[in-house]
Amino acid sequence: MDSKFDLVVIGAGPGGYTAAIKAADLGMNVAVIEKDNVGGTCLNRGCIPTKTLIHSTELLNELKNCENIGINVDRVTFDIKKIHERKDEVVGRLRLGIEGLFKSRGISLFRGTAKILSANRIEIWQETENIEINTDKILIATGSKPIRPLIPGIDLKGVITSDELLEMNETLPKSLTIIGGGVIGVEFATIYNALGCEVTIIEAMDRILPTMDKEISQNLTMILKKRGIIINTSARVEKIVKEETLSIQYNHKEKDCTVNAQVVLVAIGRKANIDSLFAENFSVEMQKNAIVVNNKFETSVKGIYAVGDVIAGGIQLAHAASAQGINAVLMMNGKKPQFDLNMVPSCIYTSPEISSVGITQEEAKGSEVNVKCGKFSTLSNGRSMISSQERGFVKTVFDHDSKVLLGAQMMCANATDMISEFTTAIINKLTYENLSAVIRPHPTYNENISEAIENSFGVSIHTISKK
Amino acid sequence: MDSKFDLVVIGAGPGGYTAAIKAADLGMNVAVIEKDNVGGTCLNRGCIPTKTLIHSTELLNELKNCENIGINVDRVTFDIKKIHERKDEVVGRLRLGIEGLFKSRGISLFRGTAKILSANRIEIWQETENIEINTDKILIATGSKPIRPLIPGIDLKGVITSDELLEMNETLPKSLTIIGGGVIGVEFATIYNALGCEVTIIEAMDRILPTMDKEISQNLTMILKKRGIIINTSARVEKIVKEETLSIQYNHKEKDCTVNAQVVLVAIGRKANIDSLFAENFSVEMQKNAIVVNNKFETSVKGIYAVGDVIAGGIQLAHAASAQGINAVLMMNGKKPQFDLNMVPSCIYTSPEISSVGITQEEAKGSEVNVKCGKFSTLSNGRSMISSQERGFVKTVFDHDSKVLLGAQMMCANATDMISEFTTAIINKLTYENLSAVIRPHPTYNENISEAIENSFGVSIHTISKK
Repeated sequence: MDSKFDLVVIGAGPGGYTAAIKAADLGMNVAVIEKDNVGGTCLNRGCIPTKTLIHSTELLNELKNCENIGINVDRVTFDIKKIHERKDEVVGRLRLGIEGLFKSRGISLFRGTAKILSANRIEIWQETENIEINTDKILIATGSKPIRPLIPGIDLKGVITSDELLEMNETLPKSLTIIGGGVIGVEFATIYNALGCEVTIIEAMDRILPTMDKEISQNLTMILKKRGIIINTSARVEKIVKEETLSIQYNHKEKDCTVNAQVVLVAIGRKANIDSLFAENFSVEMQKNAIVVNNKFETSVKGIYAVGDVIAGGIQLAHAASAQGINAVLMMNGKKPQFDLNMVPSCIYTSPEISSVGITQEEAKGSEVNVKCGKFSTLSNGRSMISSQERGFVKTVFDHDSKVLLGAQMMCANATDMISEFTTAIINKLTYENLSAVIRPHPTYNENISEAIENSFGVSIHTISKK
Repeated sequence: MDSKFDLVVIGAGPGGYTAAIKAADLGMNVAVIEKDNVGGTCLNRGCIPTKTLIHSTELLNELKNCENIGINVDRVTFDIKKIHERKDEVVGRLRLGIEGLFKSRGISLFRGTAKILSANRIEIWQETENIEINTDKILIATGSKPIRPLIPGIDLKGVITSDELLEMNETLPKSLTIIGGGVIGVEFATIYNALGCEVTIIEAMDRILPTMDKEISQNLTMILKKRGIIINTSARVEKIVKEETLSIQYNHKEKDCTVNAQVVLVAIGRKANIDSLFAENFSVEMQKNAIVVNNKFETSVKGIYAVGDVIAGGIQLAHAASAQGINAVLMMNGKKPQFDLNMVPSCIYTSPEISSVGITQEEAKGSEVNVKCGKFSTLSNGRSMISSQERGFVKTVFDHDSKVLLGAQMMCANATDMISEFTTAIINKLTYENLSAVIRPHPTYNENISEAIENSFGVSIHTISKK
């Protein structure tokens, strides 16, 4: 067998599958090579399974106070096996969806492990045989995997990454210590806290979500602590020791501390998947073990492209990978890129949700940009009151002189669904006046956006203001 | 007492209270006259109480299938009194909020009924005394009240409007027939169906939500019927007769039909509140018993303005009234209006939610506008699958040649919070390319927007497409 394709995509995650579909729609003869299930980390071990768990556990949290809204439930229990079955069912349906999209476009799906032999030839290690295929172009979208840092005890049983935690389908640990208070850390903390597990977060930086707006970190810290989650910041894990449970020893302000847990989740970051991707005598330029690409997503070898978590200096988010994949395929076909890759929103599925795009007030302070900022607390918002939301806020960052929007941060119910109005505004250089002219419906969480915008250059209607 | 104000606002609903606050912020000496509680229909007898009831009843619906997501509840009951108490508590807190905003700005609140004596003088009938105040300008924001049509039997006990239904705090009717399948009708149908009440909708037009996109009506009909709500369209109520319960007799395709119910909700529309607003020898120009205003919201009498439900030909929505109020106050102070009043979003709080802004495909067909439309079904959306959403969709309507966005319709979870991206796009004349460049986060309901936009001029990634 000696097939010849216009494009072979390695990896069927959000970067790869999206690029493959776009390429087929542009008339290319496309193959995808995937060693595992289609959907990549995002669908199989990331966004989708965690958000499905969050959907179940949020209901558990809601039921804790439901008598306040007039609903009585005699006894609430949960079935951890069933919760995970539901997760697996959603994942399974979405996998079938991707396979259906491939089939409808005539995309060839090879199930096996790819090894790039040259710019035009790939070996595929399949279950029963190895084959080789020829291709005009290659797109590497092999993604990333969790980092296991070199801490003594990291290989002990019970010290796991999100991959393994998502597969703990039958048992629930009594206690969970999470090393790393980033997005993955706080989302799992939320899930396992709702399931009744004792959760501790250990974060090396001085706050959880260290890359986010500072007030978001502070507010989330307060909310998680109120729920009983223990948060240790400026804390560096030194070693993990097996005792009756696992003993995590860490240094906090030059003091040695210990926390015990049945399970330790290591969530300190992810690294590019490049193991055995290239034949021995062949490779592309790398930086810190990630693939270097130019602004067309082409590597140092002509005809070989890369997108998503595998590239150096990239943003490790599913929607960034998809957008890069589509842009890469458009450009390799001589077309203009579609997406503005400078403006990638980030989302965190806590309660309330968190989302952010563009620059924060602190980032502006550290730069030459002179900004005017607005903020509105969701406490005065009718819709937030109706659904008994925790305190949150919307913040907007405008250029002081041109009044063009530069950034926005939200900690608010439905924040992940509302951030795109800001992204649209920023990339289209909309101003305070452009955004201020919009009638936002009542009663919605969305009204918080209008109020934050008004507070950037004046006083909004629902802000207390001394005359 | 002979006070003198720059502006007296009659009515403290969304149109009036917002205008009063804006006027005070602009330096005017402002008084508000309100005969009932502050907040108007929206807060006391409309949006806020209904959405609070929906919040409770949606949880009831969610609990019907929660074992599917691994949560078990032994026995679910509800306390109708407590549900209403919660509603009253939310309403009460929001009322206090408005009063606080007034106080902080030094706005005088008169509790009484206003009678306009002349362009500069108003009589206030208070509980213990009548007073008169002088003012430079008057803003009428007295709102509207439910229409009770001239049907035989309309005055029978048990035939009520939304005002009275929201006050039925202690009992739950076994059966409810709703005359009118508009927004108010379908929202109450959803609430009372979830509470176990037998609900029938009788709508004169050939579909419920007759002003909405046709497919939204069809899809909602299907969803409500599946839940057991009986929907009779093209049905004209002839009379209501008191038998053991109430017998509603209606004509459907020239056949006489009958449905029985304990309670009949009349929800066929609302009319302007102008009863005894003017002294006998004084008035402003009216049209069909509503106040005529020019594009500065000034009535036929100089210095008297009107906004909201009370004006002729207006859109009876809280956020439209607020925007009109702010624009009116800005213009009476010689400033540019803030809001683009041509683009008012409508929202319906069913499940999934419904929202709409700008023109629909059908409206375009009936006009000279040549459009390209896109649609995406939420069935393929990961986030919708995670939360077991009913089938919905997002539709976009672009100008065929300029590719400028003209309208959008959504039936999708969080649709009421997501419509503003479209409103922003339409009023700022953003094109397909402008909107297509936006990276919308994964996994969100929001991704449905990207897919609908792509399907307007091509094929989106997640659409099945035969190569």
